[in-house]
Formats: sequence, structure tokens, C-alpha cells
Amino acid sequence: MQIPASMKAAVLGDPGRIEVVDLPMPDPGPEDVLVRVHRASLCGTDVKILDRTFFKGGGPEPGTFVPGHEYAGTVVGVGESVDELRVGDRVVSEAHRGCMRCRACLGGHYTDCLNYGVHAKGHRAQGMTVNGGFAEYVRNHVSTLHRLPDGVGFESGVVLSTVGTVMHAFDVLGELVTGARVVVIGPGPIGLLAVQVARELGAAHIALVGTRESRLAHGRAFGADVTLAPGGGGGEAEALLGSADVVLECSGSGGGVDDALRYARRGGRVVLIGFFDRPVTTDLNHAVVNGISLLSVRGEGTGSLQRAVALAARGRLDLEALVTHRVPLTSIADAFEIYVGRRDDALKVMLEVRADDGLAGG
Amino acid sequence: MQIPASMKAAVLGDPGRIEVVDLPMPDPGPEDVLVRVHRASLCGTDVKILDRTFFKGGGPEPGTFVPGHEYAGTVVGVGESVDELRVGDRVVSEAHRGCMRCRACLGGHYTDCLNYGVHAKGHRAQGMTVNGGFAEYVRNHVSTLHRLPDGVGFESGVVLSTVGTVMHAFDVLGELVTGARVVVIGPGPIGLLAVQVARELGAAHIALVGTRESRLAHGRAFGADVTLAPGGGGGEAEALLGSADVVLECSGSGGGVDDALRYARRGGRVVLIGFFDRPVTTDLNHAVVNGISLLSVRGEGTGSLQRAVALAARGRLDLEALVTHRVPLTSIADAFEIYVGRRDDALKVMLEVRADDGLAGG
Amino acid sequence: MQIPASMKAAVLGDPGRIEVVDLPMPDPGPEDVLVRVHRASLCGTDVKILDRTFFKGGGPEPGTFVPGHEYAGTVVGVGESVDELRVGDRVVSEAHRGCMRCRACLGGHYTDCLNYGVHAKGHRAQGMTVNGGFAEYVRNHVSTLHRLPDGVGFESGVVLSTVGTVMHAFDVLGELVTGARVVVIGPGPIGLLAVQVARELGAAHIALVGTRESRLAHGRAFGADVTLAPGGGGGEAEALLGSADVVLECSGSGGGVDDALRYARRGGRVVLIGFFDRPVTTDLNHAVVNGISLLSVRGEGTGSLQRAVALAARGRLDLEALVTHRVPLTSIADAFEIYVGRRDDALKVMLEVRADDGLAGG
Amino acid sequence: MQIPASMKAAVLGDPGRIEVVDLPMPDPGPEDVLVRVHRASLCGTDVKILDRTFFKGGGPEPGTFVPGHEYAGTVVGVGESVDELRVGDRVVSEAHRGCMRCRACLGGHYTDCLNYGVHAKGHRAQGMTVNGGFAEYVRNHVSTLHRLPDGVGFESGVVLSTVGTVMHAFDVLGELVTGARVVVIGPGPIGLLAVQVARELGAAHIALVGTRESRLAHGRAFGADVTLAPGGGGGEAEALLGSADVVLECSGSGGGVDDALRYARRGGRVVLIGFFDRPVTTDLNHAVVNGISLLSVRGEGTGSLQRAVALAARGRLDLEALVTHRVPLTSIADAFEIYVGRRDDALKVMLEVRADDGLAGG
Repeated sequence: MQIPASMKAAVLGDPGRIEVVDLPMPDPGPEDVLVRVHRASLCGTDVKILDRTFFKGGGPEPGTFVPGHEYAGTVVGVGESVDELRVGDRVVSEAHRGCMRCRACLGGHYTDCLNYGVHAKGHRAQGMTVNGGFAEYVRNHVSTLHRLPDGVGFESGVVLSTVGTVMHAFDVLGELVTGARVVVIGPGPIGLLAVQVARELGAAHIALVGTRESRLAHGRAFGADVTLAPGGGGGEAEALLGSADVVLECSGSGGGVDDALRYARRGGRVVLIGFFDRPVTTDLNHAVVNGISLLSVRGEGTGSLQRAVALAARGRLDLEALVTHRVPLTSIADAFEIYVGRRDDALKVMLEVRADDGLAGG
Repeated sequence: MQIPASMKAAVLGDPGRIEVVDLPMPDPGPEDVLVRVHRASLCGTDVKILDRTFFKGGGPEPGTFVPGHEYAGTVVGVGESVDELRVGDRVVSEAHRGCMRCRACLGGHYTDCLNYGVHAKGHRAQGMTVNGGFAEYVRNHVSTLHRLPDGVGFESGVVLSTVGTVMHAFDVLGELVTGARVVVIGPGPIGLLAVQVARELGAAHIALVGTRESRLAHGRAFGADVTLAPGGGGGEAEALLGSADVVLECSGSGGGVDDALRYARRGGRVVLIGFFDRPVTTDLNHAVVNGISLLSVRGEGTGSLQRAVALAARGRLDLEALVTHRVPLTSIADAFEIYVGRRDDALKVMLEVRADDGLAGG
Repeated sequence: MQIPASMKAAVLGDPGRIEVVDLPMPDPGPEDVLVRVHRASLCGTDVKILDRTFFKGGGPEPGTFVPGHEYAGTVVGVGESVDELRVGDRVVSEAHRGCMRCRACLGGHYTDCLNYGVHAKGHRAQGMTVNGGFAEYVRNHVSTLHRLPDGVGFESGVVLSTVGTVMHAFDVLGELVTGARVVVIGPGPIGLLAVQVARELGAAHIALVGTRESRLAHGRAFGADVTLAPGGGGGEAEALLGSADVVLECSGSGGGVDDALRYARRGGRVVLIGFFDRPVTTDLNHAVVNGISLLSVRGEGTGSLQRAVALAARGRLDLEALVTHRVPLTSIADAFEIYVGRRDDALKVMLEVRADDGLAGG
Repeated sequence: MQIPASMKAAVLGDPGRIEVVDLPMPDPGPEDVLVRVHRASLCGTDVKILDRTFFKGGGPEPGTFVPGHEYAGTVVGVGESVDELRVGDRVVSEAHRGCMRCRACLGGHYTDCLNYGVHAKGHRAQGMTVNGGFAEYVRNHVSTLHRLPDGVGFESGVVLSTVGTVMHAFDVLGELVTGARVVVIGPGPIGLLAVQVARELGAAHIALVGTRESRLAHGRAFGADVTLAPGGGGGEAEALLGSADVVLECSGSGGGVDDALRYARRGGRVVLIGFFDRPVTTDLNHAVVNGISLLSVRGEGTGSLQRAVALAARGRLDLEALVTHRVPLTSIADAFEIYVGRRDDALKVMLEVRADDGLAGG
């Protein structure tokens, strides 16, 4: 394939502004891969990037920075040391490449890299600290790309990057999920995918907590045995109190933590996935007295996206059901409006970067 | 229900002899449950119990001891402290109750109880150190019984006790199996169930190693991506060398360990499940140089049978396919002959203790 | 030894009242041990027991209940199945015996027993749900007693029960403490012992956070490399921000959690040990964004007290330095006054139940 | 400091031959550090490198390759991205730098790198696959160097690299060593250091198994509570059977594995550290029946050397006691003779690369 010298890419402008411009083609290093993006999607962090609250100290110069950390595409070039992937491979990206020399990275925890944002030492967070996938082409470290199985399209592939985070939340528990009683709080994309993954891993019972009935209906279709409202009223909530082996807090609301602690059994574990936008007031004493731990995961840690890909390869996940909107890259500002406004109950808003979405590489 | 004063039970005689006699009804203690057995099955350990090589020092008096550690039935009585189960509940048994006061039991490892066989301190191994399930009635500690879900019959329930061992082998790895490359060595009941469980937990690739084509065909039907002969010849074997994240050694043959080490990747884990009947000669240096560990599991450890039950409740396992023979309890000697002689490629030989096998309690 | 028919014991009266009366001698069951108490000490939980806020629903009848969960003494009788200990052995008690049949206990987490307080199923918390050690004699399950090494007196033994909790906080991390950077928040007995244990386990750096200089001075003597005030002001605090692999929150103050999160590095772990007396408001988002987990421990879990005893056996802990007051059992009300009022900077207030405190059994 | 254009270095010749020649100065990359070597030592692997049995396919061209993976020295230059170390820092090296892009490395297990020996992808094993420390200067990746604490000299630093391996063997157990009963098999440098580390981490009991009385005497001085001969005869051996929580097999002899299994308790763990030079015949069934696992460690894994350094910083290890011989680099062939012949009961044979061994950098 002939790689052009420039590409269309969405770049941040002033706070709240994003527009598509021409940028020079990225230049992959010896361990890098050049990916032609087919599909990309928006997540909550992108909204904070757009309004620049994500950045400390103002963020990048307007017109220079390409967001986007959820995307899939086709390999069009590989660095000189890369033999893990070949031109033509269809791939999905994970967000984080660690410095791989700090204590956290050496210990296998690269999403907790102690050199976060220090590009000179090798850390990169796609679309967060280096240019990402809201563009025709993007540069990735080879370790951040995973080959999509036959039968898994680009859109499903993009959704898999979110499944990676869910999988990581289960993996940090250090035991099988099979047979566990699971409560998921917050029926957004992460929560709904958590229901699916819990079902596939063999959870004995799955409860989903949320407000909007349309979302809860999705949850029931995806495998939730019971759905209920936040705050713990009603007989069903009563029956679940103190019963869950694992609670996934995906809502990012303070009340979600209280619910999580209430549903956890003695010695149970809460995994915090949702980001909170303010300090949380919660009954931590309940945690101490009952030996309940609160684990945190940020993004898809080691091996998690690869695990998600394996489940998808067996046809075990219903990924496209989460895609509610499709928008061309050139209309990315509209895509943000849809997502932020939750228009038509938007779940995943998919950017169509390249016209076709065939399963074959291109 | 009226509980009779005596029951039919199969008791060990001289080495190799077993016969059905009348025994007094077991007398449950305050933490015990009295179970009316519907189905029970034979496993390799029962063969060693029959020929008394299982016992050090001769074993129990002829005419007194009831073997049988794989069985399912109905609760007909509960001790005074038991509210976890009720009369009429359909249940499956696990084999081990620890002393719950030694270091191993206190730490959650009751299958490694340091007071193994010391009944006075509370340890019991059903059908091994105390009377088991080859009888109309059996006494179990409440912690060793698991309620069978609706839709899971007694025969499937019996097979679940073997799944419990398989599940434990995966659980001791301390991480999700999802996405792992798994090799299973030995296509007996344990190996074939391991293929099923690996598939359900989302293994990325499953290879099954064995000799008999009929067994390997079962394995492929249960989810093995590839089957191959022991000893590692051929292109497919070549391709798998050094590739497995997890190898389950279920064959109990010394060659199985060499195969296991060969298929494991650097840093991979081998789980030893099969019992060996002689010393094993193996290239342990390959393990050290490549950081490969050999874990051991004996039976269904903490929570594993409960996990197995949860998978069965979702209809995710094909348990009855392993039942090749059904024999009335009164013909138990025949059952042993079929099993030991692998007559008609016997896998699980099921003892019909009670005529019906309906799903409802009775 | 002749065991008398009755004993002196401190019993709860109306809220805030405790007095020494004659009670019948405890009657040990087959797995129990009768201990003659030599020394016992007060902890924060005893204060809540005294004012009855510890109990839901009023608590035990006045005149019947003996508190006390930190004590050491001599074995004077053993149940029929007990051979782990003999009459004359000098022992220290841990507080919790699980039901050993629930999911948590079977999994090795008996301090998280799901049948907490259900005596009929075997759960006992000495001095909390069953009679404890503020008495001349006390009944313990054999699994809750640990033999004191030669050279470790009864007072040191009593303090070891607190070290057990500290040890458990380190053990749940699932890795060696050696080389870790540790921050301890709250220089009470738990925090000060945590400094000692961290030092002995080889922590690379130990910081202690607290208010009172007298306590911080103890901390420095026990091995703290640096001591600092809560709230994180000053250059030393600045230098520690985001640096700790492990933070132990032993203060029970809400601000302690914020300090803990601030000092933890990305991917670091906070262990909550102190009980909070009100809801805690804290920047949990900092935890999520930085992958910081908050583990909880309640009391001395599996094996932890035994580990503490092993350190003491080597003479590696300075236990008696924490004993600031000694009061006869008959003056127990005074002991509570001293402890609650922190009179003379009280740390451990020791009840002298038996006059002598020789090292030999008696 | 002025860095010269060439250096003295010991290079492999024909099998069994090593000589000191002039080589060009190594050229550090952006993540590398140039180290001036002060002291280096020989280990068993060096012997296999010398006779070239270590290499598959002949090994490197004579006259080109510098062995040596245990060394300490002073930083004399740093790559452009390095700010973790500065010129003048005194450092000790660990052997392995992983590719940091394979599954094993990403998961924190870089000593199990799946690209072992693939320099193009970034893997390096100092003195094994890239030039090592038997030279005046050596190039290291920054992540493989650890600053020596004040008061720890270069010779002690060199020995610390062996302690790193021991520490890793304890760390993979995933729990505190405190209170454990430990058996160490093989009183070579690794075994003797294991005794020291077990003592410092608070093992309850330490037994050392070996043949030579001089070595066992060292072991007793270093903290072994009991020493005994291989093969398990005698009353002391009898008393230890089935008692050890942890057994470290450091002898590399097949009989060592049988001893290890015999001393391990039910559910105990054996860690294989010693390399075996032939297939091992052992009673693996004993492992399965008793739930005993055999873990393997190869070299100093993540964080282990840093942990060792922390212990040394507190003055807790007796490192120089293992140095029995000192030989100038120019006499390296003699050093090998001493080591291979175990002349004068040689333990660590130290190469003096630079004349002084002051504690200050230089």
C-alpha cells in the first residue's frame, strides 16, 4: 500500500472545540506499528479531554493534538523489530504503553506507570498523552495492538477495548469469577459489558443497579438476573444486602460506593472503575468492620484486552448491541454532542473513519 | 419421611471384594446432614480402595467400610445447627471435610488438612476415611454438600464432583483462564471435563493429548481445538511446543510430565492432577531454566464444586455425555469390572442406588 | 492442678459499668482449652463494649458477660480431642474462631465469617460474642491459642495479639514487605507496632504520621525513618507524596484516609485497620485514577498471630515498651478510666489477673 | 571523568579458554548506563559459559564475548533519557532485561521473557546473551542497576545479586515468610544466603541440608536452627519429615528433590533454584497426593534485588563472609580453576577489576 504524506485528523482547538485538519503522517519507530484507523469511539475521558479539564496546566497547543483511545483498524506499516504483526492485520488498540523501566511497569502494572506522561522515558497513553485514533492513521507501540479474530468486525473490535477494562477488573481479584455473586453498579457501556463478561465467566448471580429502565433492559438481555434502582430500596435490594462476592462500581457516583459496600458480603471485594467528579462521602467503617476491600483499576491492564479478544473470538460477546450511533470522522463535533447529551440514549458513538467496515483487512 | 433403621450398603471385603449388605443407618451429628443417595460413580481411587493398596496398614475390617466419594442424592435429615439445607433438597457431595483447626485448614486449604484421616479431630474423607456413598444413605458434614440447581439431574450432579477437581486446578492459578492457551494431557473423565471447563472459561486455544481416538473425538466435541498423540511428534505438536500458559497433567503417566514441560511456555504453569503409580523421571532442569512451576491439586478444594455447580446451573456443561454405563448398586462388583477393564471404553460408570432419577427431590 | 468451681470475672453492668463478680467456671468442649489468665489488656473495642455501642439491640444481660479479647495465660485443661497443647503451656489468645463452614471460613478468611456471632454454628469472638479474658479463667477453641516461646513473658504475649493484627495487614498484600516504602498513619499501639514489624520485615523506608510528639518519639525509637504531622504540610511530607508502596491507616480518622491516598504511589496499597466513628469524605477519584487500592483487615487473620509469635521468639520486637500502666483485675473500672482518658499518655493498660508474671507456666 | 576509547575485558576463547584483551568501549543507548566495574564474581552458569555447554549451536565467536553477570561498580555515563542514576553512583547489576513487549514481560515476569536472547527486541542477559561484567566497563539498561547504600561496599554489592535470586524464591510464595518453617537444601552460596534471608524475614525454624561440615557450620552461624545430611537419616531428619512450609532446593541434585518433597508438609511449597545437569527421578505422586507444589525461579525477578539491597542497607546481611578468594581480573583463568575445583572450599571467588574497594564512588 502507498502511504500518503498527510492525513485527516481531528485535533483539539480551544476548550470544547475539535475539528478535522490535515496533519503529517505519523512516523513509527523500530518497535512501532502504523495503523490505518477504520472505526473509533468516544468515552467519558474524551469529554474531559475536549473541555481540557483532563489536562493539568492547559494541555497541548490548539491544532496539534489528536484524541482517541478506543479504535480499530488495519496495520499498514511495522517498525524494524516488529514481527508480531504484519501489514494487513486487523487490530484493536489498548490505550497504555508503560515506560517499562519503573517499579510498577517492571512488576507488570503498566497502567500504574510511575512515569505516566513522560514520553521521553517511553510512556504513552494513546489519545491522552500522545496522538490517538481520531485520525486516518495512528502510531502504536506493538505491545498495545491485538489481532482481531476472523468474524469480529472493526466496530466490535472498538468495543473490545472497553471490555478490556472490565476484564481487568475481574482479573485483579486473583481468582475465578465462576460461581461468584456479582453486583454491577451503573449501566453505562462499562457496566453493561461487565454483565456480559460476568455471565460468560460463569457468575452464579448477577444484579445490575441503575436508574434508566432502557439501560436496565439491556442489562437483563445481557444476562443480569435482577435489576434494581440505586439506594437500595425494595425487597429485591433487601435480599441482596451483604451477599455479593464482587461489586463493580461503574457509575462514578458517590452513592454508588455506599451501595457497593452495602451489597458486598463480609470479606467481599468492591472494584472501583468509574471516575468520580467530586470527593466521596461513604461509610468506610462498614468496610473495615466487615473486611471489605476496595480495589481500583484504571483501564485495561496486562493481558486483559487479549482475554477480551479471546472471548470475542468464540462469539461469546454481544458487542455491536452497544453501538447506538455512527458518525463520520468529519462530523466529530456532532458525535461529541450526541454522546455528551446522551441523545437517543446514546451508549457507544462510533466514528466512521473509513467508509467500509468489512471483516477483511484493507 | 420415615427413615428406616438399616440400609443396603456396599462394603469392602478381602482385597478386591465388595458386596452389598445391611448396615445400621448412619447417625448424623449437629453439623451433619443425612443424604439418601440416588446415584454414585466410580473413580480411580475407588479401585485402589477395592484392592486395599490405598490404605496404609491393611485398612478397615472386612464388612465394615463403605467406599464411594462421588454421589448425589436427597437430604432426608439435618443436624440441629443446620439451616443451610432442608429436607427434600437435592444435593451433590464433595469428598473432603478438614479438621478446620490445623494450619492448612485455617488457611483455606482443607484438602491439604494436616490431620488427614484423624477423625477424632474432625477430618473426614467420604468413602476414604469414613463411610461414603455406595449405600442407600450417607452422612455428610453440611459444608460438603451443594444444592443441585433445577434442571441438573442426579447423574449430572455426580459428574459435577469431578468437575470440582478440574475447577480447583484452574482456580489455584490465581487468575482468569480467559485468553489462556491450555493443554490437557490425558483424555479420561478429568481431562475431558477440563476441556469443557477451559472452553467455558474462555481459553484462547485448547489442545488435548491422548492415545485413544474415541476419547480424542469426545475431546473435540467438547471444545478441543486440536488433539494429538503423547510424545510430541508431528507438526501440530511442534507448533505447540513452549506455547501453553497452562498445562493440566491428568494422565498420571510419567511421560505426561515430560509432555507437560515441553508444551509449557517460559513462566507457564503445569497443574498435576493425575496420580502416578511409580516414580517419575523428568527433565526438571527444563522447568528451572524456563521458570515453569508444577502445582498440585488433590480433589475439589475450597469453593470449586460450588463454582462447578454454578456453571451447570447455566446449562454450560455436557455432563451426561460422560456416563457410559449404568449398574444397580447391588451389582457393584460388575461396575468395578467394567470400570477397571475399560469395557466398551467406559468413562463414568454410574451406580443406580435408587430406581428413579427424576429432577425433583424425593 | 485443682480447678475451682467458680472464678472472679469482670462483667458488664449498665452502660459504662463493669465490676468483678464470682462466675461459674467455664466448661470446655471437646475442641476447647481452659486457660488460666495471667495478663489481659484493653483496646478501643473494649471501650465500645463497655458503653454498649458495640452491640446491636442492647447487648447481653447485665451481670453475665465477660469482655476481654487480648490476654495470655496458662493452659489448665484441654478437651478430649486436643493434643496440640498441654496443661502447663503458656499461651496467647487470638480473638476469632470462625464457624468453619461458611464460604469465607472455608476459604481461609475466618475473621470475615459469614456467621459472625452465630454461636450455634460455632462462631466465637472472645470477649465480644462469648465470654473473654477479663477473668481468672477463660474457654478458648484450641485453634485460637498459640504457645508463647521461652523468654516471652505474659505481658509481651498480650501485646502480641495486637501485633497479629499488624502482621495480617502486611500479609494480605500477598508479597514480601522487604524493600517497600511504608507509611504508617496513627501512632497508637497498632501504628507503633506496625513500625516495628515493618522494620523487622525489611521495609526500605518507614514514615510515621501523628500528632503527639511523645508518640512520634516512640516511633522513631522503634524504627521510623521520619515522623510527620497529619495533613501533609512541610518539606518532608512533600517529599513523600505519591511515594509509598504501602500505607497503613491506623488512626481511624477521616483525614487519615486522605493522607493515605496522598502518600500512596500509583498502584500502591492502603490498608485500613483503624475503625472510623463516622462516614469518611475522601478523594476516591484519586484512588481510581492512580490505581490505588484500599484493603481492610479486621483483627488477626489466618496465621498472623503465629507469625507474630515467631518474630517475638527471636527477640525481634520491643513489646513491653508499649505497656504504660498496670492495674489489678479488681480495679478494672480504673483501667478503663486510664485508657479512655489517655492518662499519662497511656498506650497499653495491662490488667494483672494473676499476681506473678514469671516466664514459667504455673 | 574521561572515558577511554578501549578497555580490558575477559573474552571467551575456545571451549574452556578465557583471556583478557583490549576491546572497544561499549556504546550506551538512550536508556543505558555505562558502568565502571569494580568487583565481579563467578557463578555456576559462568562455568557452563566457559566450556560453552551453555550455548546452543556453538556460541559466540572466540575473542568477542565478555561473560560476567554478577558485578558492581560506578556509573560513569548515562543515556539521554536516564535520570534515575547519576555519574558517580555506586551500583550493583541484575542479569536480566526483558524485551518488555511479550506476554511474560508485560505481566511482570521478565526473567521468563518469551524473547529470551532476541537482542533485536530488547532482551539482554548480561554476560549471557550480551557482554557482561568481566571487564573494566559494561553497558546496562537502567532498569537493571540498583544504587548501593552507604556502608555497603562493592564486594557486598556483588554478593547481593545472588541474594536477589534468593529473595525472588521467597517472593513468589505470595505471602510473608515470617513464622514459616523453612528447609534449605544445598549449602552453596545460594543456600547459605537463603538461610540468612529466612532468618531476617522471621522464619520460625530453619533447617539446612548438606554434606560438607564446613558449609553447614557457615549455615549455623548464619541462622540455621539445625543442619543435617542429605537422604533424611537420623532422628533430626525424622522430626522434620512433612513439616516444612517452604523448601528451597538449591543443590541441583536429583536427590535434593526427593528430600524436598519429603520435608514439605501437606500443601507445602518447594522452590527449585538449583540447575540440574540430568533428568531427575522423583516421587511426584507424593507431591500430588499431598498437594505439594514445585515452583521454579530463574534468577532475580522483579523487585527482588531491590529488596535485597534494602536488607543490606539496614546491615542485616553478612555478605562478605561468603567471599573466600580474591583474584585480579587479569588472572581470571585462575579464578575459574579455584571455583571449579572448589579449592580451599571456595564459595564466592571475587574478581578485582579495579584496585580499590572503597565505599565511595570514584
